[in-house]
Amino acid sequence: MARRVAVVAGGHSKFGKRLDATVRELCAEAYKPIYDEGITQDRIDATVLSYAASQFTGQGAGSALIADYLGLQNKPHLRVESACATGTASLRAAYGMIASGLYDVMLVLGVEQMNRVSSATATEYMARAGDMRWEYPFGISFPAFYALMASRYISEYNLPHEVLSMISVKSHHYGAQNPKAHLPKEVSLEEAHNAVPICRPLNLYDCSLITDGAAAVVLVAEERVKEFTDRPMWIKGIGAGASQMMIQDRPSLTSIPGAKQAAKAAYEMAGLKPNDINMAEVHDCFSIAELIAYEDLGFAEPGKGREIVENKENYHDGRIPVNCDGGLKSKGHPLGATGISMTYEILKQMRGEADKPSRQIKDVQYGLVHNVGQSGQFVNIFIYERGF
Amino acid sequence: MARRVAVVAGGHSKFGKRLDATVRELCAEAYKPIYDEGITQDRIDATVLSYAASQFTGQGAGSALIADYLGLQNKPHLRVESACATGTASLRAAYGMIASGLYDVMLVLGVEQMNRVSSATATEYMARAGDMRWEYPFGISFPAFYALMASRYISEYNLPHEVLSMISVKSHHYGAQNPKAHLPKEVSLEEAHNAVPICRPLNLYDCSLITDGAAAVVLVAEERVKEFTDRPMWIKGIGAGASQMMIQDRPSLTSIPGAKQAAKAAYEMAGLKPNDINMAEVHDCFSIAELIAYEDLGFAEPGKGREIVENKENYHDGRIPVNCDGGLKSKGHPLGATGISMTYEILKQMRGEADKPSRQIKDVQYGLVHNVGQSGQFVNIFIYERGF
Repeated sequence: MARRVAVVAGGHSKFGKRLDATVRELCAEAYKPIYDEGITQDRIDATVLSYAASQFTGQGAGSALIADYLGLQNKPHLRVESACATGTASLRAAYGMIASGLYDVMLVLGVEQMNRVSSATATEYMARAGDMRWEYPFGISFPAFYALMASRYISEYNLPHEVLSMISVKSHHYGAQNPKAHLPKEVSLEEAHNAVPICRPLNLYDCSLITDGAAAVVLVAEERVKEFTDRPMWIKGIGAGASQMMIQDRPSLTSIPGAKQAAKAAYEMAGLKPNDINMAEVHDCFSIAELIAYEDLGFAEPGKGREIVENKENYHDGRIPVNCDGGLKSKGHPLGATGISMTYEILKQMRGEADKPSRQIKDVQYGLVHNVGQSGQFVNIFIYERGF
Repeated sequence: MARRVAVVAGGHSKFGKRLDATVRELCAEAYKPIYDEGITQDRIDATVLSYAASQFTGQGAGSALIADYLGLQNKPHLRVESACATGTASLRAAYGMIASGLYDVMLVLGVEQMNRVSSATATEYMARAGDMRWEYPFGISFPAFYALMASRYISEYNLPHEVLSMISVKSHHYGAQNPKAHLPKEVSLEEAHNAVPICRPLNLYDCSLITDGAAAVVLVAEERVKEFTDRPMWIKGIGAGASQMMIQDRPSLTSIPGAKQAAKAAYEMAGLKPNDINMAEVHDCFSIAELIAYEDLGFAEPGKGREIVENKENYHDGRIPVNCDGGLKSKGHPLGATGISMTYEILKQMRGEADKPSRQIKDVQYGLVHNVGQSGQFVNIFIYERGF
């Protein structure tokens, strides 16, 4: 019924500890390649800013600031926030505004700057996305939420920690080949398995990074796509799900109910099955989260995700390549930018523009983004289709 | 092309200094009348939370918290933020998601709790919606932004301050008749004109309130409206605009460029003219803002807004009734709730359900909401049409 929407262009800043730049400058860095492609400000109707946690910088009402700095002063804008799933929540809102006819061309910009405060303060700010009355005051932070899931998974399925480490090894293997990555270095299985504990059973290499960075994509209504590109990536399916606020209320800790709900909705809208997906960008905020994602997305049966890892099916030349850009673990996880960065990576892979042949996935017809907020309270899943 | 969307129900908490309640409880208070009307959780597909400034309470990722508390755990949700225009930005996002076919029935909840910190701290938090590098550090806060506009208006059009006070007198006249209002008391012109200065030329009665409260509306796709009500209020026009981030960059201070842009877009989409509008809810964060709104919305020529005031055309029985619920000045201004509260008021007026005949506007066919963020960087305008 509604008109179709395509991603026609993307941009990405260097991820890292970016004390050389402000939030607005990171956004400009992500927009610049888009501008250089000829998508100048006058061609953009409106923007959505994906910015999760303004407390990191103290700046409120960021969408006006960013729009102003990018020369988009007179274009309608708004900010969306859904914790770590902010990027795809912004895309969901933008999709609606375009498909419904409100706008034809939108710039969706994701950004976060997390390193202007200490890691401890950053961890505390993120913990405030837990329940401020019933979780945060008792000291639970995000490594702890996911450590609970990991403990339960390990106990239910008798999982050796090395399987989680193998996921981190893969992330770093690909991050090392991604010039935008925050921590572009290989790690060995031994290093990953024996690293310093953060929250048992999770160690340093099971945890994603506290990163500064920005990413951007341009969404366009179908009638206008040809003005922008002959290599569009169509939004084929969108699914959103939600889970109980407090982890204690969940029926299970080895799966995220909202992720299964979102996957079902996205596959249904796309008319596709897990088998049809050629690559996925999943939300590996912790190694256990990636393992659980394989199962929630239907790439493996419950408890069998480890087979994907052990058989290296998740590598760029495997059955279901996952996070061949380094993922949140090695590329980095600037909250508001993450979901947009995932989308950007699928666009690049579809276009055959991965930075090196050694991380280029072949013939991507359908790519999937899995973006999770908090410990699963928000989940957005997008399925994209190559349009060329 | 896209399907139409209607407002089918609304709810409103008591506005005020609500230290008796938390954010989640305020939301429940706004949802309760909707629930009591039979729109139970199972009938809602997804929610949008309109919540401007989570720093007031420290709670991040509020949409999960609120959805959970209201028994909507398994419904997709996201949060929108556009400073003081957050309510209508949320409605704009929700409209898109419904009109595009993603969801049929959405609950849009607006909330803010601003009184858990001191007024000085609240004013400081709001000031962070100014540019954190180029405005905030130099001490400019919102009364000052609007005092600059007022000074310029007074100087350009030789406006006596009493005209601004007459606007405040009207707001309090109607707020006194609104059981949900924060400060439901009449004030005399003398009191309003001679009150203690806040930021000259604006005094205490020129400034809106620091308020806690929540408001909610339910939006439904046209095919489903009949299941919910035989008295729908259709979204007829939506316009959004934006202005330069810094007030110093604006071409004029006696008008808000983004408001004129938003009005033009909303009238165009609705196929209506200013003359067709039977009532308006405008963003009177300061008395001068209401005066400027008359002109930006085309109810008066530039510089002539005072005639509306002096002739009492803005009263409930006048040519263009404005803020006959007390407005931000007397009803109150809980940032995220404000735009939703305005929408709720139009629904009530259209249905002939204003609390008292002495503030009931007759035969409202078209109502307009004008919701401004910061000093005009965000503006959303909605035009609603009675559907019964």
